[in-house]
Amino acid sequence: MTPGELSLLLARAYLSRVAEPPAPALAGFVVEHGAERAADAVREGRVPADVQKEVGARSELRLAEADLQAGHAMGARLLVPEHEQWPRERFAAFEHAAQNGARNTAAPLALWIRGSPRLAESTASAVSVVGSRAASGYGEQLAAEFGHGLVGRGFTVVSGAAYGIDGAAHRGALAGGGATLAVLACGLDVGYPAGHIGLLRAVEAGEGAVLSEYPPGTPPARHRFLIRNRLIAALSMGTVVVEAGRRSGARNTAGIAADLGRVVMAVPGPVTSALSAGCHELLRDGEAVLVTSTAEIAEAAGPIGANLIPPGARPSRDTDGLGEEELRVFEALDPRKGASADEVSVRSGVPLAGVRAILPALEFAGLVARGEYGWVRRRRRSERS
Amino acid sequence: MTPGELSLLLARAYLSRVAEPPAPALAGFVVEHGAERAADAVREGRVPADVQKEVGARSELRLAEADLQAGHAMGARLLVPEHEQWPRERFAAFEHAAQNGARNTAAPLALWIRGSPRLAESTASAVSVVGSRAASGYGEQLAAEFGHGLVGRGFTVVSGAAYGIDGAAHRGALAGGGATLAVLACGLDVGYPAGHIGLLRAVEAGEGAVLSEYPPGTPPARHRFLIRNRLIAALSMGTVVVEAGRRSGARNTAGIAADLGRVVMAVPGPVTSALSAGCHELLRDGEAVLVTSTAEIAEAAGPIGANLIPPGARPSRDTDGLGEEELRVFEALDPRKGASADEVSVRSGVPLAGVRAILPALEFAGLVARGEYGWVRRRRRSERS
Repeated sequence: MTPGELSLLLARAYLSRVAEPPAPALAGFVVEHGAERAADAVREGRVPADVQKEVGARSELRLAEADLQAGHAMGARLLVPEHEQWPRERFAAFEHAAQNGARNTAAPLALWIRGSPRLAESTASAVSVVGSRAASGYGEQLAAEFGHGLVGRGFTVVSGAAYGIDGAAHRGALAGGGATLAVLACGLDVGYPAGHIGLLRAVEAGEGAVLSEYPPGTPPARHRFLIRNRLIAALSMGTVVVEAGRRSGARNTAGIAADLGRVVMAVPGPVTSALSAGCHELLRDGEAVLVTSTAEIAEAAGPIGANLIPPGARPSRDTDGLGEEELRVFEALDPRKGASADEVSVRSGVPLAGVRAILPALEFAGLVARGEYGWVRRRRRSERS
Repeated sequence: MTPGELSLLLARAYLSRVAEPPAPALAGFVVEHGAERAADAVREGRVPADVQKEVGARSELRLAEADLQAGHAMGARLLVPEHEQWPRERFAAFEHAAQNGARNTAAPLALWIRGSPRLAESTASAVSVVGSRAASGYGEQLAAEFGHGLVGRGFTVVSGAAYGIDGAAHRGALAGGGATLAVLACGLDVGYPAGHIGLLRAVEAGEGAVLSEYPPGTPPARHRFLIRNRLIAALSMGTVVVEAGRRSGARNTAGIAADLGRVVMAVPGPVTSALSAGCHELLRDGEAVLVTSTAEIAEAAGPIGANLIPPGARPSRDTDGLGEEELRVFEALDPRKGASADEVSVRSGVPLAGVRAILPALEFAGLVARGEYGWVRRRRRSERS
């Protein structure tokens, strides 16, 4: 590492320690002046009032070196916007959103990351899978299936690290041997939730990574989960809500994803399940697209025109191509009792001349036959033994 | 009954026997000339070619008197468009649809009805509940619940007479003591399906009715179910598809309902259930509104502005009204370990002056308290014992 690079990392580490994300004024100040000059200005209190409001409470915290050492000790590195693997294109959505009037949002100042640091590559084609902590077996099964199916189609999976849907999505992606990203609402060293420490280790050991904008030691807090959700939304092309109650973080992520111009998808479930009520509400409100399979997710989230589901996939019947009068004639016949064309005409209400033209055509199609005692219907494929 | 009335009934009985529904040319001819003159013209073969095509095969069937006698013998009557209880307003949709280019559709020429003949009244506020014959327990439970809930809100339920969703909807409506209409695809005397003869008797015995445009003795046939579906759609303000496979008659009814300008609703279910796939497809294609409860059905199907669900029905939290900085301050506190305002400022990133203003406000709201060793968070309602 060159002294210049170290100086940059120290500046970014300091800045991300002194402001509680998101810090839109500080972010703008850093873009304007560069990280190092911005850090100096913050340390010396020479910043505009809106920036000072964001950093005033913590500007005395000079922990940059200690934070970098702590990161090094735990195998994490600080990914900064100046790095080629910074997910620049994904985070451009924050600028667009701010221009469109979204308030209090901003790209992170830096990201602590453990696992594969190739974030720009892994998020080039990514889908986030989110939902309730207290998921049902139905929801967990689907999340795992989607995680598995998405990596099989070349997508990276993005989620949080909670129990329930988040964990199931990661497990499915890992089982599929693909990349999955876990975005935390606390420092990477906090070990939250405790029951997922092993899972997060597996995520890091695979193609994916665990990441957070919060410095080492930052405890999780409710507002941090909400703020973290913007990163899950931004890092993916679309967000699937698998299960969500009427009030849930997953719905919050969906709202942010929509603000960022991402595709929002929701999975339906039993209307008797409170865990699907949030999904149904998103669908009722027209805020999400209904998806029921990985194929549908890939179609909705992927680049336009890619991953289209072939239209042929519907079941067919022998009588599918028949016109209305042909169907009436066909239905007027019995598989066993033969009927004359006259009888068929009266039964079906189709004029005799029409019946006389239709019966041979149906015979040619293999649907009816001339029996000893008149015309009979041939059994349908599904009825044949 | 006056001789004039009898003559009218005989004419309508004859006309509905000689044409297989729907017979749009004959229907137009009858509107133009009146039922009795139209019947004479058909009998004598003095009709335009398009009408002749609809009646030619059966115009020799002179069964009007026999049909009226058969109807009388089974306790049914022939309801005709000239009667005040003809559901004129509902059936006006057929004219609008035809004007909008819908082909091969028409109001029925007459309706055989058993039970309450007050059809104009019972369909003034009606919802049809349709779905698969081979329904799941989930689907049947919901159909019964909707049937019960809809009559409780003053709606009449409309459905077919099949096993599965149809039967469950009727049973729910009957249990609620309300009116339910079963529309058959065969003659009222055919007794199809056999396992629902008792249920249909109960429908007739209550506030509702069993009805059909098919003369006595007409056997069920697949095309008749599809044609019958237009009456289910037309007789109601909206159609709810509770469960439907990707190919199903219920989806057909939904399509007709849309053509008739009715509200189409679909109930989601597990994506793992093939019986909900048709519902999900309707929702994905934007052809139906997602509904999960009777209240939502009533809101969607009822007159605009009626039956609105009060917006308040969402769960609330103690911290719901808090602004972003207030929430951050609240979250920075612990229920047990006290903290000074300074500590809270660093932890939350909120400037000290802000923290000093926010803490007393939170105390006033009962969310935080001044403890012996500093500020503490008070336990949330749900956490209190």
